[in-house]
Amino acid sequence: MLLKPDRKSVQRLVEMALLEDAPWGDLTSQTFVPAEAQMRARLTAREGGVFCGEDVIAIAMASAGKVETTFAIHDGEAFEAGAIIAECSGPAQAILQAERVALNFAQRLSGIATLTAKYVAATAGTRAKIVDTRKTTPGLRLLERYAVRCGGGHNHRFSLSDAVMLKDNHLAALAPNDGSDLAETIRKARMQLPHTTHVEIEVDCLDQVPMALSAGADTILLDNFSIEHLKCAVEQINGRTITEASGGVTLDRIPEIAATGVDLISVGALTHSVRALDLGLDI
Amino acid sequence: MLLKPDRKSVQRLVEMALLEDAPWGDLTSQTFVPAEAQMRARLTAREGGVFCGEDVIAIAMASAGKVETTFAIHDGEAFEAGAIIAECSGPAQAILQAERVALNFAQRLSGIATLTAKYVAATAGTRAKIVDTRKTTPGLRLLERYAVRCGGGHNHRFSLSDAVMLKDNHLAALAPNDGSDLAETIRKARMQLPHTTHVEIEVDCLDQVPMALSAGADTILLDNFSIEHLKCAVEQINGRTITEASGGVTLDRIPEIAATGVDLISVGALTHSVRALDLGLDI
Amino acid sequence: MLLKPDRKSVQRLVEMALLEDAPWGDLTSQTFVPAEAQMRARLTAREGGVFCGEDVIAIAMASAGKVETTFAIHDGEAFEAGAIIAECSGPAQAILQAERVALNFAQRLSGIATLTAKYVAATAGTRAKIVDTRKTTPGLRLLERYAVRCGGGHNHRFSLSDAVMLKDNHLAALAPNDGSDLAETIRKARMQLPHTTHVEIEVDCLDQVPMALSAGADTILLDNFSIEHLKCAVEQINGRTITEASGGVTLDRIPEIAATGVDLISVGALTHSVRALDLGLDI
Amino acid sequence: MLLKPDRKSVQRLVEMALLEDAPWGDLTSQTFVPAEAQMRARLTAREGGVFCGEDVIAIAMASAGKVETTFAIHDGEAFEAGAIIAECSGPAQAILQAERVALNFAQRLSGIATLTAKYVAATAGTRAKIVDTRKTTPGLRLLERYAVRCGGGHNHRFSLSDAVMLKDNHLAALAPNDGSDLAETIRKARMQLPHTTHVEIEVDCLDQVPMALSAGADTILLDNFSIEHLKCAVEQINGRTITEASGGVTLDRIPEIAATGVDLISVGALTHSVRALDLGLDI
Amino acid sequence: MLLKPDRKSVQRLVEMALLEDAPWGDLTSQTFVPAEAQMRARLTAREGGVFCGEDVIAIAMASAGKVETTFAIHDGEAFEAGAIIAECSGPAQAILQAERVALNFAQRLSGIATLTAKYVAATAGTRAKIVDTRKTTPGLRLLERYAVRCGGGHNHRFSLSDAVMLKDNHLAALAPNDGSDLAETIRKARMQLPHTTHVEIEVDCLDQVPMALSAGADTILLDNFSIEHLKCAVEQINGRTITEASGGVTLDRIPEIAATGVDLISVGALTHSVRALDLGLDI
Amino acid sequence: MLLKPDRKSVQRLVEMALLEDAPWGDLTSQTFVPAEAQMRARLTAREGGVFCGEDVIAIAMASAGKVETTFAIHDGEAFEAGAIIAECSGPAQAILQAERVALNFAQRLSGIATLTAKYVAATAGTRAKIVDTRKTTPGLRLLERYAVRCGGGHNHRFSLSDAVMLKDNHLAALAPNDGSDLAETIRKARMQLPHTTHVEIEVDCLDQVPMALSAGADTILLDNFSIEHLKCAVEQINGRTITEASGGVTLDRIPEIAATGVDLISVGALTHSVRALDLGLDI
Repeated sequence: MLLKPDRKSVQRLVEMALLEDAPWGDLTSQTFVPAEAQMRARLTAREGGVFCGEDVIAIAMASAGKVETTFAIHDGEAFEAGAIIAECSGPAQAILQAERVALNFAQRLSGIATLTAKYVAATAGTRAKIVDTRKTTPGLRLLERYAVRCGGGHNHRFSLSDAVMLKDNHLAALAPNDGSDLAETIRKARMQLPHTTHVEIEVDCLDQVPMALSAGADTILLDNFSIEHLKCAVEQINGRTITEASGGVTLDRIPEIAATGVDLISVGALTHSVRALDLGLDI
Repeated sequence: MLLKPDRKSVQRLVEMALLEDAPWGDLTSQTFVPAEAQMRARLTAREGGVFCGEDVIAIAMASAGKVETTFAIHDGEAFEAGAIIAECSGPAQAILQAERVALNFAQRLSGIATLTAKYVAATAGTRAKIVDTRKTTPGLRLLERYAVRCGGGHNHRFSLSDAVMLKDNHLAALAPNDGSDLAETIRKARMQLPHTTHVEIEVDCLDQVPMALSAGADTILLDNFSIEHLKCAVEQINGRTITEASGGVTLDRIPEIAATGVDLISVGALTHSVRALDLGLDI
Repeated sequence: MLLKPDRKSVQRLVEMALLEDAPWGDLTSQTFVPAEAQMRARLTAREGGVFCGEDVIAIAMASAGKVETTFAIHDGEAFEAGAIIAECSGPAQAILQAERVALNFAQRLSGIATLTAKYVAATAGTRAKIVDTRKTTPGLRLLERYAVRCGGGHNHRFSLSDAVMLKDNHLAALAPNDGSDLAETIRKARMQLPHTTHVEIEVDCLDQVPMALSAGADTILLDNFSIEHLKCAVEQINGRTITEASGGVTLDRIPEIAATGVDLISVGALTHSVRALDLGLDI
Repeated sequence: MLLKPDRKSVQRLVEMALLEDAPWGDLTSQTFVPAEAQMRARLTAREGGVFCGEDVIAIAMASAGKVETTFAIHDGEAFEAGAIIAECSGPAQAILQAERVALNFAQRLSGIATLTAKYVAATAGTRAKIVDTRKTTPGLRLLERYAVRCGGGHNHRFSLSDAVMLKDNHLAALAPNDGSDLAETIRKARMQLPHTTHVEIEVDCLDQVPMALSAGADTILLDNFSIEHLKCAVEQINGRTITEASGGVTLDRIPEIAATGVDLISVGALTHSVRALDLGLDI
Repeated sequence: MLLKPDRKSVQRLVEMALLEDAPWGDLTSQTFVPAEAQMRARLTAREGGVFCGEDVIAIAMASAGKVETTFAIHDGEAFEAGAIIAECSGPAQAILQAERVALNFAQRLSGIATLTAKYVAATAGTRAKIVDTRKTTPGLRLLERYAVRCGGGHNHRFSLSDAVMLKDNHLAALAPNDGSDLAETIRKARMQLPHTTHVEIEVDCLDQVPMALSAGADTILLDNFSIEHLKCAVEQINGRTITEASGGVTLDRIPEIAATGVDLISVGALTHSVRALDLGLDI
Repeated sequence: MLLKPDRKSVQRLVEMALLEDAPWGDLTSQTFVPAEAQMRARLTAREGGVFCGEDVIAIAMASAGKVETTFAIHDGEAFEAGAIIAECSGPAQAILQAERVALNFAQRLSGIATLTAKYVAATAGTRAKIVDTRKTTPGLRLLERYAVRCGGGHNHRFSLSDAVMLKDNHLAALAPNDGSDLAETIRKARMQLPHTTHVEIEVDCLDQVPMALSAGADTILLDNFSIEHLKCAVEQINGRTITEASGGVTLDRIPEIAATGVDLISVGALTHSVRALDLGLDI
């Protein structure tokens, strides 16, 4: 069961994109394609991957005109090069106008899902989950996080408003000058937060782990730790908090990082450096 | 002189992103960082490239609080790894809240500018210009096209509303069944368009070139042509229209494509598969 | 085949107008007309003209309630005084609430279409097309340009963003002080623009024509030229660019201006001084 | 003391118009005019009239850039042909970009003010006031009503939500079939309305006047009455309600209509058929 | 016949509330409730009252998913504790997501309707109407005024834009220093207003009544008058204007205030201090 | 240190309220108060309480005109009847226009803060915190939660999107029919959620507590428990999760509920039944 993004919000995004791409209509199809011409088009995979894009494609097509879209491949499913993912039928003007917007969304989202699936596969046999970050495309976080889920990954906090992450800069700004205890200071400040707010503390070295534990962290983020140090930290924390590894994470290094026993590996590249998957619309 | 995007539109995009990233505030910095704490932070390049991001960074910082940003590197300028690009100073809460949004924009845009600059460099000694496509991130076209310009590239039409591009699908839908002439049909339909509308016709093989010329194309797009055929087409067209090459364009192939004498080479990868440039904010 | 404005954009405009005209409902019809009362109303022409308003009327009525509208006269068709253009049937409250908004749009648009048709008729037997300008009502450009097309006119560029028009003020600001060539300066600056951008240059006297040609204008706008000078200019340009006449254009003068051989005559009065056509809704 | 429209609402309208006219910037001035070029421009009257447009011009200029505008002629003041109304100074790019939007607003509004002033002058020596109608341009009612005030006219109700106007269609829909009294029915229905709601009843013939009086009308609208019948009605009503004349009102007929003693004369043409006043921006 | 609020405006409010309550979906029901699970839920009264909430409930449910709602009790109808007001059936995820928003609206509105009905009942046998004030919840005035009508109350002016109310502060600011007459000054200033604008003048003591009459008030607001003085004022005014009592109005005092013969009693507490009526959704 | 709501969001709310209260200006003050009249007004407490409203008042005044507001009492501070809370000075028109909107916000928010403070005081000597619920006014949750904090209360989750709360209806819909374990089902479903998502489970009787513990709840909500049962539950849970009491909570019962040792007491009445605190603006 895949947690889907709110449909109304998806609709707003797709309509915004259609407006961006045709502020006052598609001069080409409206001028050169007869209004009554009907068309049947197939969304075809030019390379293999994991699909994400049902809603964005269906909504783009339906917003441009009376186009029906049926899907042979569903969100989260893998496919081979050459697979026919979906079929659109309806007025040619509408399909041609919506084509690029539908593809711009679906290629990006499927690119994310496909890349995520590779990272997830590399954790096989371990307890580690692959999680995303806030390094998403401005405006598209809702969709990109969904694409991560389609690829088998998990989501981190949605935004600055729904969980606390104390990083080095925060700790530096917070550090009490009066000799009092940092952990104690954190515990006190936390009192203002809703009891439902998860608190994650980032540490840069093993020495900081006891402070984070003492401050009552729910999750400890082990940033840029060596494999050796990751193992030590996991052992030291010993299940008292969730553990997350980040920094210098590449696909190649996933197996060894996952093998250290961390609960989570966060990967900015899932969303900040997306290669669009090659999908095309064939008439 | 670099054509800059409309500042009000940029502001809207940045504010949307800040709202997305903190719908009801930054729990972490508001709770754990004293409101009166001031901070000075440096935007540093972790790798070399071409910068694009002055407005988005300055606006993100100023929207989050009274943060001043000064730039040592300006849009369109190249820098080495380690370079200090900008300095922000102001309330720590504001800088920490705006940090990720500022970086999400600037890393993506600088990634585009940097990649574009590589393609442009590969055309050295030829008449060919590198141009972008409509394969941009939904919602960010205004900014991504600017990033292409910062990298020395040129823009194609902005949207479906401001120029005509007749592709195979349009030609198929338009093709007269009554034996009449396709070029003639195009010329007639064009009469409805504003006289300022540029008409580009995509051809897939050399045989179609005469039709495109006869239809009065302003630009002919030579799609997926071999180097050999590109040369023939350029010769055949002989300056009567602008010529554009597209399809199967990689950085490696740019020199030989450019050498065929085409005017434009359009590259979807400039925007559809962006690797975020590695920039960081150091306190 | 008439290029229609984007239906979603039209809907937004009509809903805005309904809200403007009844921010919290129609006190009169909601208070004094029974909710269950049905009504049949006819849109009747009190004078002859060319119709433009199908979408705005149908949308206004359907937005106010379950009102169906059928049209006997369609956009772009001429009608006599007394003609029944459309029939609306549905709840009386809704029809009475939407009546004024529907008429405010349709009377204005039909006024534009009707006036345009007169200008177009006056070009009979010449190559000249009547084109509109940016002198449109703020907020209604999309609709008013459509009304011009309904009247048989053609559109000029949509906005400052989709074509270049160099007027005297631009040339004055651009004029190189260093003795270098103005045409050369224009050619260089143009390099930044998309290749799809049409460049039109306005000239005030015959002497400027060679500069405009040399600068690579796609269209030359001959502003406030005498008939004599228009003829000279057309001859001098000799088909190398499109020619447009403007300034001091009245309906009376159209035949002689058109006879000079110019391609386009632009008429601000089509949209800046609209007389609403007299249409009424009869129960 | 002139009741001015809400400045924030005016700002929204002007910004909407600027966006409409340059969705992604002014290609011409941004490309061909140096960013640092300063300009001084004068808004000059090509014909005489009454001015309306201070806010729209100042806001359009200030929204496009750091342009200052000072006014020699103020809203509601008359001027001769050749008068210099205002002076703008600031970046040339901004002035050139805002020029058309500023003029589109100011020419229309000054056109309304000028026409209204003529109608008002024609009522000299009588008690009659000239009032506007809901026949305004969709989206611009706030401004157009202000222009009417600038011309010395008065406003009618703003919208369907702030006063009741019972017209023939309402009366037909409301007419009790059960033999009960129409005036009584109106009095009863009125009980639902706020006590601050003004009720105006339209009558088509003298016979209906007693019913309107008996129904408790605050104003009686005498629609399409002959001069003779207007006089009778005014006499019959004898100050018990406000009287308004409408229908077939032209500038020529104002004196005789005003002489009948009616309180108000409503004129749709003030706003539904506006001729833009000829104003220009000279550098 | 109950004047209902504009349905589109209600829809906007409900959608805003749903977005506020679930900016990126309902984590609980989307994660823990199967997408295909159907549900039937009953809106039940935990206490008696007067209902207001048909539209808000139906729209909230229909916006969250394909939920149908049928009502046994309609807006404006009274019910006992235990009554089943409505039944919703459809996808469990949607009903659970919309539940709180639907209740937040309906409980507040029914609270207002119920309280209003008590005030109205206390006026029995007198001419006095209970009217609301501008002391409504920011953003919800449209709905709260409707709830007052559902409870049998009447509305005062909707906003500052649709009727004039001169309070002590205005009179102080307006008072002529030059010895001229206040009533005369008001009469003159009023000339600028539309003839449909109702003018209400607030007086604090009996002495001011003649001024208000002389100024041409349509309604006189008797603020914080004793019962004795209310009677005097009503007698003195003698039907020449509407009379309104306000200040220190509690449910207990309504009968004696109403018995003074005033036309209106305005009660801020109807909307500024609402107790949510206890309604619940039972599965 | 009081976590303040995002200022831009507050501004949006206040501007929306000003527009609601004066869609096209304040007829009264614009017509009857001279534009140049200045005013000094004091916000005075007619009864004692805890203040919340600095931003809303200052923004309302500054949005209506150049009004400066200074505060003697700050958010979260208690005051006595008669206290002068703030002073506004600036144009009389602006102060009079903004008055009601400023008061509508500040009276409601101070009402919430004041009521919350009473509940908080009643927990003295116990570990229990008073927390709010989602029973807030549609559109005002951001502000109302802040008012709760001003009164010394704490916030629960902001929305359905940022924490999970499993209530009886969810458990009913989720309950596995196949005989498998409910706790196990919850644990599995939870895997999809971000690791930062707090999971709270509502139980109606002591018997359900073991299931909630076994399901891995972070907080257990003890709904409608007797004092006796609350004590048992707290003992049984023994610090393994946070405990929250709800249902039938009145101010009188707070001390005994708090004495049971629960961590949190949630009180819907803090926001769903707000009595506006009596504040007034004196000139």
